[in-house]
Amino acid sequence: MGSDFFGEIDPPQRLLMGPGPANVHPRVLRAMSADVLGQFDPEMTDYMNQTMALYRQVFMTRNRWTFLIDGTARAGIEAALTSLIEPGARVLILRGGRFGMLLSEIAERLDADIRTVDLEWGEVATLAQIEAGLAEHRPAVFAAIHGDTSTTTAQPLDGVGALCAAYGAMSYVDATATLGGMPVETDKWGIDVVSAGLQKCMGGPPGCAPITISDRAANFMAARRKVESGIRRADIADGDRPFIRSNYFDLSMIMDYWSEKRLNHHTEATSMLYGARECARVLLQEGLPARFERHARCGAAMTEGLREMGLEVYGQDAYRMTNVTGVYIPASIDGERVRRRMREDYQIEIGTAFGPLAGKIWRIGAMGYNAEMDKVRRTLDALRLTLAQEGFVPDQARP
Amino acid sequence: MGSDFFGEIDPPQRLLMGPGPANVHPRVLRAMSADVLGQFDPEMTDYMNQTMALYRQVFMTRNRWTFLIDGTARAGIEAALTSLIEPGARVLILRGGRFGMLLSEIAERLDADIRTVDLEWGEVATLAQIEAGLAEHRPAVFAAIHGDTSTTTAQPLDGVGALCAAYGAMSYVDATATLGGMPVETDKWGIDVVSAGLQKCMGGPPGCAPITISDRAANFMAARRKVESGIRRADIADGDRPFIRSNYFDLSMIMDYWSEKRLNHHTEATSMLYGARECARVLLQEGLPARFERHARCGAAMTEGLREMGLEVYGQDAYRMTNVTGVYIPASIDGERVRRRMREDYQIEIGTAFGPLAGKIWRIGAMGYNAEMDKVRRTLDALRLTLAQEGFVPDQARP
Repeated sequence: MGSDFFGEIDPPQRLLMGPGPANVHPRVLRAMSADVLGQFDPEMTDYMNQTMALYRQVFMTRNRWTFLIDGTARAGIEAALTSLIEPGARVLILRGGRFGMLLSEIAERLDADIRTVDLEWGEVATLAQIEAGLAEHRPAVFAAIHGDTSTTTAQPLDGVGALCAAYGAMSYVDATATLGGMPVETDKWGIDVVSAGLQKCMGGPPGCAPITISDRAANFMAARRKVESGIRRADIADGDRPFIRSNYFDLSMIMDYWSEKRLNHHTEATSMLYGARECARVLLQEGLPARFERHARCGAAMTEGLREMGLEVYGQDAYRMTNVTGVYIPASIDGERVRRRMREDYQIEIGTAFGPLAGKIWRIGAMGYNAEMDKVRRTLDALRLTLAQEGFVPDQARP
Repeated sequence: MGSDFFGEIDPPQRLLMGPGPANVHPRVLRAMSADVLGQFDPEMTDYMNQTMALYRQVFMTRNRWTFLIDGTARAGIEAALTSLIEPGARVLILRGGRFGMLLSEIAERLDADIRTVDLEWGEVATLAQIEAGLAEHRPAVFAAIHGDTSTTTAQPLDGVGALCAAYGAMSYVDATATLGGMPVETDKWGIDVVSAGLQKCMGGPPGCAPITISDRAANFMAARRKVESGIRRADIADGDRPFIRSNYFDLSMIMDYWSEKRLNHHTEATSMLYGARECARVLLQEGLPARFERHARCGAAMTEGLREMGLEVYGQDAYRMTNVTGVYIPASIDGERVRRRMREDYQIEIGTAFGPLAGKIWRIGAMGYNAEMDKVRRTLDALRLTLAQEGFVPDQARP
């Protein structure tokens, strides 16, 4: 039977320069190696409260309800949409890439009345386009992706919250790929719910979804509250709106768990909370402006370096995410073979692509712990040498 | 701003002898401190495949579909029920404690037609009672809890799968509190879907839910498949049954992610996977029989020790979980004050209770890494001394 147990965890030392996950900051891994606490231990609830305070700074918000969802970034999206969208409610979704389509996919599962602003992959919407959509459809919820890694494009969001509020819509934004790397200005944008993950610019592992919720949205969700009959208490009443169609993603109950009520829900994923807390500490000690500048500098260097070697960069410079760059695979080159050689010869991972961009572009990231100039150089050098070995001649670069 | 960053993660060294989480095996924490890999890196998918093979042994099954859900144990329950229960489908739920009630709570969110076999908290159902329920209600799905920590009671399940199959029902069992501590004989019992967590007898942290799925159930779920439009592929078709009402918990898509198709879904929670894999390795190196015997020995010693100090143990010896013991709080004693003194004076956590048992019993666990005789003795000694200091005289013990 011995051979059925396999060996110890001992991964090769890969440099992860794809669209995420990126390598985890060593301080985060060390924090996660601390032993766990009971979920209602005062030391544990202190850590939970501290995590809320730290993520308020990360999300640039004063929202009381700023905490963690126990699941991957996608769990944060589904918790937000499930709690915001009542069955049959009208939802307006901005779709310009794979993750915009994921929003409507999730909304469809929730029996939403879905309307969309559909863009070509890689395009962004103007405020006028968003307002036209709100005016035409009068949705209860507006949802968009900040940085859609499938297209390496960042949607400008300044002014969007005010527009949504003016048209009576709750607003949701997924910032999985940008939080900690580009400004996610929750309060300035006026977005009601923003969720994210740790495995991109936050420098943590996948498996935890920070989220922040405005009081307006929290009150709406509380009106959908449905307390489990096994743990009913006199101080927590059911709401009068249609209940949320998931127990695990019922944000009203999760808020009661993270509040001083400490209503039992799931058992908080202690190790991931330790990791999330350390991600935020590392980030805030660096400072948000320095962090954003570091990502912008590395993203610009990556884009410039790719162009210098004769490759065509995908997308628009004005709306490019700073932490991931799409680049066309030259016509003469086998993209998957290059990715494999990068991995095998240099221990460097670069990313493939989805949907209409599959086989057309690579996606090369420099985010979180990996947004460093030496790692950008190492990646560019390895790609240049690999492409040369594959017979790439710059003049043939244009697809 | 410095004070807003708080200090490093540095929890006190608590001995967690409540109903879970328990202390994590140090090997598991060390495995989790390895850096992450890209989700489609061949080294990562090897680890995923190994994890499947390891958990087949843990779940005592030959089920191909044996893998991890990225979320807490509750996420595993909801993934199973969401994928098994179609809107309006009839579900028969065995309820003899808080977690049995959670099953119907989740089913209610899914618009199920809910029927129940209701027991007093702490009672178990006979096979005849289960068969009577199946015969009367003819449900599409039968759901039960193996070990309901709220009552410290384990439901016998031998023969239940065959009964369900005879009456045309899919069967689901939650084994969160027993997997790795008591036999969870998936194939022998004939249960279609079993899910669990790591933070009880598996010796891991909360935040990951192992699950196993029979081919019969997997085929049913595949018939509910709905592939995201952003990543459609010619080799994966939608099913012809009503689609699953969650994207994150759509087990048909998660199976496609864990299969050689590697259809992108969430980004696997790498660190938790490392931890789950190491939990299984530690367990299988000890061996299942030795592991079960260790839990039984420690549970018996705990029960006996509590009785020897003049306390009344809750529940029935014949159906007692081996890893957690309920004990009545003596009438003269402030239960929360004792728990606080145990924590502050001895760094030992024991558990409180829910619902009708709140304030009536403590729940004292010895599970996973903590199912050791020295820890049982340390807990009993600390409780005896604390109760004496609180003025407890054994003759007054009976409530």
